Amino acid sequence: MTPPPVALGRTERFLRACRGDPVDRPPVWLMRQAGRYLPEYRRVRAGIPFLDMCRDVERAVEVSLQPLDLVGTEAVIFFSDIFVPVPPMGVKLEFAPGPVVAEPIRELAQVEALRTVEPLESVPFVFEILQALRRELRDRDVPLLGFAGAPFTLAAYLVEGQGSKDFGRVKRMMYREPELLRALLERLTEMTCAYLNAQIEAGAQAVQLFDTWAGLLGPEEYREWIQPTHQRIAAALDRARVPLLLYVNGGSHLYEIMADSGADVVSLDWRVDLARAAREIGGKVSLQGNLDPCALAAPPSAIRERVRALAAAAAPARGHILNLGHGCLPETPVEGVRAFTDAARALAPEA
Amino acid sequence: MTPPPVALGRTERFLRACRGDPVDRPPVWLMRQAGRYLPEYRRVRAGIPFLDMCRDVERAVEVSLQPLDLVGTEAVIFFSDIFVPVPPMGVKLEFAPGPVVAEPIRELAQVEALRTVEPLESVPFVFEILQALRRELRDRDVPLLGFAGAPFTLAAYLVEGQGSKDFGRVKRMMYREPELLRALLERLTEMTCAYLNAQIEAGAQAVQLFDTWAGLLGPEEYREWIQPTHQRIAAALDRARVPLLLYVNGGSHLYEIMADSGADVVSLDWRVDLARAAREIGGKVSLQGNLDPCALAAPPSAIRERVRALAAAAAPARGHILNLGHGCLPETPVEGVRAFTDAARALAPEA
Repeated sequence: MTPPPVALGRTERFLRACRGDPVDRPPVWLMRQAGRYLPEYRRVRAGIPFLDMCRDVERAVEVSLQPLDLVGTEAVIFFSDIFVPVPPMGVKLEFAPGPVVAEPIRELAQVEALRTVEPLESVPFVFEILQALRRELRDRDVPLLGFAGAPFTLAAYLVEGQGSKDFGRVKRMMYREPELLRALLERLTEMTCAYLNAQIEAGAQAVQLFDTWAGLLGPEEYREWIQPTHQRIAAALDRARVPLLLYVNGGSHLYEIMADSGADVVSLDWRVDLARAAREIGGKVSLQGNLDPCALAAPPSAIRERVRALAAAAAPARGHILNLGHGCLPETPVEGVRAFTDAARALAPEA
Repeated sequence: MTPPPVALGRTERFLRACRGDPVDRPPVWLMRQAGRYLPEYRRVRAGIPFLDMCRDVERAVEVSLQPLDLVGTEAVIFFSDIFVPVPPMGVKLEFAPGPVVAEPIRELAQVEALRTVEPLESVPFVFEILQALRRELRDRDVPLLGFAGAPFTLAAYLVEGQGSKDFGRVKRMMYREPELLRALLERLTEMTCAYLNAQIEAGAQAVQLFDTWAGLLGPEEYREWIQPTHQRIAAALDRARVPLLLYVNGGSHLYEIMADSGADVVSLDWRVDLARAAREIGGKVSLQGNLDPCALAAPPSAIRERVRALAAAAAPARGHILNLGHGCLPETPVEGVRAFTDAARALAPEA
């Protein structure tokens, strides 16, 4: 193994960590880093419906960039929502404030009626946002991340009609009407492959797949229903160009399976023992995570200690990206987020 | 090892399975088996506020017994709620429909103002329900279970004021005001010990501790904050008389720690690979679980197959109690529950 290069640029550090090449220290960013915990974000968002905000190139670019200077994160994920590419398929959807589907999918005819669309034509603003961000970030040497919701998570909302504690309806469909759910996942998987590839085309240097609800499944169901969708997406992306990061919310029981998804980076829920995951899957994939978002409420000294502990725990893995184990919560103190990213920089070897 | 006795009675089978003594086949019951999925339950409950129902001895006994004949479960847990013993401590609480605390606990003075009460005096109806059930069940040879909410789960609601997706406030308290949270847990642990011992006195033949929100913690925080509360409760109970079952909702990442809680039975979330848990902790504790409640929507033949698979997976453990991996959901088809308990009985060796 070559020794870690000294003082890498942010983009190179991030991409090397994803691929498991030596780095000087782990890069750092946060899931949901452009969000309500930032007063500056709340100001830009005020009075604008959520989906409008996703379509507003100027504002989306602005909030995407905010965390760079405000809290010192080292990668930018474009501001958007996992549901943005769904309405063009012919699904009526609004945010109130969570996604609400006008006609939940309950029959095969509804799946068959879903339209196949060219992302560049149906959601052109997404790619304008990415291109604008890439222009901004090139000079600052900050990597740009694209993302998409995973097929099961989109399907869960489309079947349920809205958020749910148990997502019982989509899970019952799995047991009672497996062919219907399979057909829906198939369409959403296709869409997601095209959507992520278009993001790569527009300049995303890495892409993250968010499976928000797949963690509701046990390992057996996950292997049967979820893993193939991730594997198909991993195979469809231009992987020589960009790494794929995979996050499964509440997926602390699934990381061994996630390691075989084809993703380069497995993003770990905060409930995973990072040292154990590093030993068990860290030879195969890089790891991302996994501070409990609530721990950002701790005093800065305690946050620094936790970051050091996380970095040490992840050391056996081929690569590590510091992040939270879940999206940043609205009540998070900004100074805690700042302490978190500062602690990552303090991990660099003395020059 | 003595060979499993043939055709055990229900009480003996259940208690032997808890303690890891040989049995003819696993006993079966369901968490939240007296619940909204039963039309008969909905009829008795109609128009009665939830806490009133918990105080109504006759109705509580009636719904506790319903699942025996309606769906063939083999243990009875008394109908109640984990919050029943809390108002006598001086906490104003209502159900709307989840628990809502009038004055959430945010200061040490509030903890110090909590009253220590004799359960027999403060919630006498609980023990009347248990005694009445024990009389009913003795002739039918069905074991009676008591239960309590675990201290952290009660504290989570008391601090938050109501249910929450992330329970961020109580978790932030853990990081920012650890002494306050520790004092609250201390008081609730004391109360829970007294409450469960009084249930045992009143005839409960086993008791289950429900920690609904401890699964929101990572292993490190769980070890520091939760495990000591469980261990103290386990030590305080008259364990020669009754076994202790421990369920941590969303605790699929915690079962190895739960095995050292002092509980006789670790009740597993449906997301745990039961075969793996049986290998890893099944020598030390008996296991309970862990069918996904949504799987009760599957056709009866598929449910039978799953029950056989669960029993086979649990075989390396010293004992196994068939149950769900979470409470039975309101939308569960009654015929699915019936198929589940029938499948357990079909596991008995041919006479």
